[in-house]
Amino acid sequence: MKKDDFTELDRYISEKQKIINQKLDEYTPLNSYTKLTESIRYSLLLGGKRLRPVLTIAVAEILNTPIENVLPSACAIEMIHAQSLIHDDLPGMDDDELRRGKPTNHIVYGEALAIIAGDALFSHAFNTIVSKTPKNVKPELILKVIEEISTSAGFLGMCGGQAMDISFEKSNDEVTKEILEYIHTHKTADIITVSVKTGAILSNANEKELDALTKYAENIGLAFQIMDDVMDITKTEEEMGKKTNKDLDKNKATYPRLYGVEKSCRIAEEKINTAIKEISFFGEKAKYLEALAKYVIFRDKWY
Amino acid sequence: MKKDDFTELDRYISEKQKIINQKLDEYTPLNSYTKLTESIRYSLLLGGKRLRPVLTIAVAEILNTPIENVLPSACAIEMIHAQSLIHDDLPGMDDDELRRGKPTNHIVYGEALAIIAGDALFSHAFNTIVSKTPKNVKPELILKVIEEISTSAGFLGMCGGQAMDISFEKSNDEVTKEILEYIHTHKTADIITVSVKTGAILSNANEKELDALTKYAENIGLAFQIMDDVMDITKTEEEMGKKTNKDLDKNKATYPRLYGVEKSCRIAEEKINTAIKEISFFGEKAKYLEALAKYVIFRDKWY
Repeated sequence: MKKDDFTELDRYISEKQKIINQKLDEYTPLNSYTKLTESIRYSLLLGGKRLRPVLTIAVAEILNTPIENVLPSACAIEMIHAQSLIHDDLPGMDDDELRRGKPTNHIVYGEALAIIAGDALFSHAFNTIVSKTPKNVKPELILKVIEEISTSAGFLGMCGGQAMDISFEKSNDEVTKEILEYIHTHKTADIITVSVKTGAILSNANEKELDALTKYAENIGLAFQIMDDVMDITKTEEEMGKKTNKDLDKNKATYPRLYGVEKSCRIAEEKINTAIKEISFFGEKAKYLEALAKYVIFRDKWY
Repeated sequence: MKKDDFTELDRYISEKQKIINQKLDEYTPLNSYTKLTESIRYSLLLGGKRLRPVLTIAVAEILNTPIENVLPSACAIEMIHAQSLIHDDLPGMDDDELRRGKPTNHIVYGEALAIIAGDALFSHAFNTIVSKTPKNVKPELILKVIEEISTSAGFLGMCGGQAMDISFEKSNDEVTKEILEYIHTHKTADIITVSVKTGAILSNANEKELDALTKYAENIGLAFQIMDDVMDITKTEEEMGKKTNKDLDKNKATYPRLYGVEKSCRIAEEKINTAIKEISFFGEKAKYLEALAKYVIFRDKWY
């Protein structure tokens, strides 16, 4: 696979980022009673490529749905992503002090507030979907989206993947393909997949579209985590905006640990090829989803 | 106020507890991939009076709604309550080792899993509402319930109260009436209030009913927290199933700190009287809600 010219995609991403950042800001106003909303906004508005909500919007555009209809749910997914990062960084979890080039939430606001900030974001995500989705969107579709997102974030999804990640790290076990796939699918790919599905559900996608888009997302989600593992080895802390070279120290279950860097990159590339094939029937309309898929393996910086 | 004979109420509570415990068990099946669901079930099924879901059910019964319609939401509120206890007990928060007479979640499963278990419970609560509420309940009502619960649990509700509680504890400030009311209203009363409102919303209550039930709940919610503060001083660890006499050590903002034990009890009693007056127009039908209100101040043990 050749590295594309990402100029047009960069323009597309930055246009969507601007809208997403505005909405995240609007949906999560500062409340001066305590430092809680300040702490939430610190992590939520700290930046990041906004891959997940960009995917939701891109799918809505392909399916001719006004992006206003998906923005609250897209932002809700970003809130859950932000919550997972705040809690992942806690001393009781990965104990990281740097995220996106800045001190992590608990370093700035203390551990207690960081725990509460994550909890509040979880609640706020679902609140945002219900209170901010335009009234013309069918209630049944909103309920379906809440069901999908809460499954993907819960103990069978993201939280399940995190639990396996942590319990493997603490074990003396050798990493296996099964463990690795469980962790990557649930810890990372599930939320990326539901970002795409949310756009499809709120657009009333037909079965063929939903199925293809889901497979697209599952593949880029896995490729994303594989490349994240690879970059933990090949990139510097400065390039990544977070501590690197920590997975090996910590006995993390990663693709490079099982397959080495080169084969891991090849697996990621195969997954991206599969993803692109899945959505080829959309033709020209899918160009940004295709470019986003390629970006996953050629990105230098995603934070 | 005289201490009633609570025999009939005890029978009522234990009948409802049985149903609630069955449903919590059914909604949260064990999944053997990791210890995560075991850890969730440990805290969720550890017991407790189930005050919040009992209130939801009692309201549904007064308003002639089949309890099947409210059970998923009632259990969701109990899940959020359980999540708040797991995270409250963490070393980074209140650092408690005992809850309901048993070791706290992080003592048994470790800090990382306790953090993830709480997060997963948040997601699972909303998932349970959507996936388990019977199909004959109007989607608009389910969305309204999700909106109310997520507001009550979020940064303007429970999490906001917890944040103020923690930040006051770390300050050298003198406790004021305003701070105390903010903490108690949001940390505790909001979730108790939404338990009652959920029963009313899913029963399509009219404005008068909803308003009266909300005021009833706000008052018993505050009285509940006042009595919790009082019992931290007057009861032993054995009686309470958790460490007592810790609020004074920790510079917690409590009613006894501001008013002393006796006046605090009087304030709680006034609130219970107000609560009972608010729902008096329901007549005989409200007898369990009345008894529950009195129970709040005469209970010896709520865990």
